[in-house]
Amino acid sequence: MSGCGAESGLITVDQALDLILDKTQALAVGQLALNQALNHYLAEDIYSEINLPLFSQSAVDGYAICAQAELEPNAIFELIGEVQAGHHSALQLKLGQAVRIFTGAKIPVGTTTVARQEIVKVKSSSTIAITESLKNHADIRDIGEEIAIGQLLAKQGQKLSVGAIASLSMAGVKAVQVFQYPKVAVVITGDEIAENVEDVASGKIFDANAPLIQAWFEASGQQIKIFHVADTELAVRLLIQDLSERYDLILTTGGVSVGDYDFIRPVTLSLGFEEIFWKVKQKPGKPMLFAHLKREDHSSCYLLGLPGNPAAVYVGMQIYTTTVLNALQGYKQQPNWFSALLTHDLKVDARERFLRMSASFDQASLKVKSLSKQQSHMLSNLMHANCLVRIPAGKNMHEGQIVQGMFID
Amino acid sequence: MSGCGAESGLITVDQALDLILDKTQALAVGQLALNQALNHYLAEDIYSEINLPLFSQSAVDGYAICAQAELEPNAIFELIGEVQAGHHSALQLKLGQAVRIFTGAKIPVGTTTVARQEIVKVKSSSTIAITESLKNHADIRDIGEEIAIGQLLAKQGQKLSVGAIASLSMAGVKAVQVFQYPKVAVVITGDEIAENVEDVASGKIFDANAPLIQAWFEASGQQIKIFHVADTELAVRLLIQDLSERYDLILTTGGVSVGDYDFIRPVTLSLGFEEIFWKVKQKPGKPMLFAHLKREDHSSCYLLGLPGNPAAVYVGMQIYTTTVLNALQGYKQQPNWFSALLTHDLKVDARERFLRMSASFDQASLKVKSLSKQQSHMLSNLMHANCLVRIPAGKNMHEGQIVQGMFID
Repeated sequence: MSGCGAESGLITVDQALDLILDKTQALAVGQLALNQALNHYLAEDIYSEINLPLFSQSAVDGYAICAQAELEPNAIFELIGEVQAGHHSALQLKLGQAVRIFTGAKIPVGTTTVARQEIVKVKSSSTIAITESLKNHADIRDIGEEIAIGQLLAKQGQKLSVGAIASLSMAGVKAVQVFQYPKVAVVITGDEIAENVEDVASGKIFDANAPLIQAWFEASGQQIKIFHVADTELAVRLLIQDLSERYDLILTTGGVSVGDYDFIRPVTLSLGFEEIFWKVKQKPGKPMLFAHLKREDHSSCYLLGLPGNPAAVYVGMQIYTTTVLNALQGYKQQPNWFSALLTHDLKVDARERFLRMSASFDQASLKVKSLSKQQSHMLSNLMHANCLVRIPAGKNMHEGQIVQGMFID
Repeated sequence: MSGCGAESGLITVDQALDLILDKTQALAVGQLALNQALNHYLAEDIYSEINLPLFSQSAVDGYAICAQAELEPNAIFELIGEVQAGHHSALQLKLGQAVRIFTGAKIPVGTTTVARQEIVKVKSSSTIAITESLKNHADIRDIGEEIAIGQLLAKQGQKLSVGAIASLSMAGVKAVQVFQYPKVAVVITGDEIAENVEDVASGKIFDANAPLIQAWFEASGQQIKIFHVADTELAVRLLIQDLSERYDLILTTGGVSVGDYDFIRPVTLSLGFEEIFWKVKQKPGKPMLFAHLKREDHSSCYLLGLPGNPAAVYVGMQIYTTTVLNALQGYKQQPNWFSALLTHDLKVDARERFLRMSASFDQASLKVKSLSKQQSHMLSNLMHANCLVRIPAGKNMHEGQIVQGMFID
């Protein structure tokens, strides 16, 4: 067993995630133009105001035909005009007549079937022959066959993916009610951050945490503001107090354990935040803090205090920050864990671990393999990792056992 | 069998993807600040110029100690000072001495081990006792134990993920050589696009393609420019000619089949583009075009002509546009297909199909289930799909067979 022996009384990862889901109130709802709403969560059910297809239309480039029954090869029709997609036509077909038509064009009144152009021979400017047999109602997309007016298109709580945006666009939806995206401030604590190589000589280190968090939000298309603060109680207090009045979520890195220069927790509590949890039985990231401030106007500010070690920050962002951001947008679910086969044994640890691993599919089975250099101050294996895997606390794990995890980019 | 019977002579999906990889030249290389380089592909190997850790440091909040051997409980040490993370200290330990130290702080010369504060009792301002036995060299992170000077950090061709950015930041990397991201123009063809509800009455439809492509690039953090063009040869010619002089990649939707108003291919070829392929034995998206223009200055413009049906555009973006964009950035690999178990039978089709499905893990097996409404003019099942699955051409598929696919957001 490793760890410092103080694991008893800590809450588990699942308990921490459930507390986040339970204690986090969703932010307000607002209207956005659909083309501004990518990756937002819907705050309303959306019902279609139109049929899809909007009208019965040709599925191919070919000829709309009016015939009495199924066609035998070499049936002849009189060609009376053309209908192009997107163009209005008043043409009406009578028995024995045909019009040239294109994919997506509205079929004329009287159409009984559509002959794709590959089976049509143009005999003259006014006569065509159908070269193969042809069923009634071929290659017609019927009005409303995909979606009928009034049908549910999308549900409250659904994330507006690229596909969802496209699908709602096609149904003529122009604006949607969504949950607001949280305003996020990031506070990087620690005097040890080097600005340049000279600083490094004096016991400082290059910072991974600010670039990590900056890139993480950039990858999800969100703007954040990053603040650096010195390791003094006054500096931490002034900054957190100010941010707590203006932001929905404050993320901090470092200064959240019990060291003499760990001011995040005492300052946060003294500013009136209620502690939702502190310390999770996990590795990396044990001294993690989640706290909530109810402002006088009944609005809220949440603070997620991540430890300072970069691997703990990475895990904290992937697992916990995601969960908090989702909950602030009304989406209250744990991460969508995959299940996978462990390809080797792993020794017991007193805490649940999030290990950076390499996952690959083998005949529809997902197999995961741990990478070296898992310590909390090490990040370089993220060059090769494509998932984080949960290893339960207090168990020797064996090859072939099933574990949970999530893919990372 | 469905389809229009003209499948012979078409190239397969794998052939099309391999032609893209084979015929697409990577764009130029340039230097970017690391914090601007998220999701770019590295154009150089990167070797570490520093050790990581940069210096031997404490892994915990506790006391650095100078002792002769492993400690028995209740060993006593003289406390001679404190070293904070990020602060320089000239302290040196002699036998029997200790200093207060914090996580990440440089261990003083003479340190033989570190006692975490949980096992230390402060007896007086100048005396501490270690309450448990303690090994030599405990809780010390050694200089270079993760990365040594000169060690390979990242390889040419690697994508700079969030984790990679963080990891390189920690190694002090400030700028990187990367492949340029392509300049992309998107051309939406078709007279049938409705701007408002009045247009809909006259045979037009609401557009999914422009919103789809806009959102798709927004999701990957990239700016593009979208152009709409009327279905006339002149309009298409003038626009493509102009764009071909200014963009690395032109994506088009619609107008790429053999209809009378399908001008993309004839115009492209007449402008001097070389056809790399046209028509792929797939559903949706058969009449897809990939072409290459070598400009007089030997630079290139590529054109990927997607069909107009929105499902074909969606599949085209996920499978083909991704592959082209990657190849333009020197990354020449097919999409990273998963393998999964089909949970039901599927009837044969003459063409390979990309079906929108729902995938879920069951005891480490990935299982996929097809959704209804797969036709190429239908998109609404993207509300429920989380993957695209490849179904081979010409085969009846059975429950339990293994298929390839990719996750979609």
